Amino acid sequence: MKFSIHKSIDILERTPVVLQKLLEGLSVEWTLNHEGGETWSAYDVIGHLIHGDKTDWLTRAELILSDNVDKKFEPFDRFAQFENSKGKTLEQLLGEFKEVRSASIKRLKSLNITEQDFEKIGVHLTFGEVKLAQLLATWAVHDLDHISQIARVMAKQYKNEVGPWIEFLKILKQ
Amino acid sequence: MKFSIHKSIDILERTPVVLQKLLEGLSVEWTLNHEGGETWSAYDVIGHLIHGDKTDWLTRAELILSDNVDKKFEPFDRFAQFENSKGKTLEQLLGEFKEVRSASIKRLKSLNITEQDFEKIGVHLTFGEVKLAQLLATWAVHDLDHISQIARVMAKQYKNEVGPWIEFLKILKQ
Repeated sequence: MKFSIHKSIDILERTPVVLQKLLEGLSVEWTLNHEGGETWSAYDVIGHLIHGDKTDWLTRAELILSDNVDKKFEPFDRFAQFENSKGKTLEQLLGEFKEVRSASIKRLKSLNITEQDFEKIGVHLTFGEVKLAQLLATWAVHDLDHISQIARVMAKQYKNEVGPWIEFLKILKQ
Repeated sequence: MKFSIHKSIDILERTPVVLQKLLEGLSVEWTLNHEGGETWSAYDVIGHLIHGDKTDWLTRAELILSDNVDKKFEPFDRFAQFENSKGKTLEQLLGEFKEVRSASIKRLKSLNITEQDFEKIGVHLTFGEVKLAQLLATWAVHDLDHISQIARVMAKQYKNEVGPWIEFLKILKQ
């Protein structure tokens, strides 16, 4: 499937409500537990998605489209949510993500990105040159990756309860 | 986390609306494509979930709770959806799943399952003896597994569009 702005927006604009329907009102055993060690809970992931929208995806897109000579991206803080989410309920975070994402979609549309812009370049710390189209495809895949992760993290809370069926449930073995 | 009827229902009752919000109105490139070969699209998965509710989970639970001496489960047809979904739109399937699941929850609640019932036994074709609690934990995990799968299958449609970011997107390498 070829990248288009429309196809990315189709995913990006639905993620907050998908996560709200998946998580709202669940007991904290489903939403605050994680996969052990340094892994993230559903709660942690929502904070991470908020921080990405606030500081990363569009800031990078705008830098690519700008007249700046220096196209180097700022590094993204993958752990900011542990500070930013403090004291907030999951419901508050889900509401915040909805607002932040809605603003992101407006800001993305206002950039009036054309096919000619797709090839424009930014400089990623690890990868070097990356294209605007790659950034905006990655944003949508990143959403889907975290939806998938949240479903997996939740599933694992029942890992010891499914008995022999664990053999058929690939998600519990990832 | 320990199994409870309430915790399983908490997942089971939200799956149809989660999938509706995730899939409704998307272009068919997101919903009809799969991961290649014999793998399933999002559309295929919804048909599979409908068939499970209609023929499998509760039928097995009721057999376990029944006075039948023979507790052997019927095998589940993992490919029934390819026939049953024929001619239906994704939106029709999502609506059907909503109705079927809502009926399932009612039927499950009407069984008035107690903690004493959790240990009751059915006989699985592959595993032999399995407990009612394991069946009802597996039902919820099975939902989450397929939510995770659908997000992955969709993400993969953009696999060639993310460029070097594929390195950071675990979902594209599963």
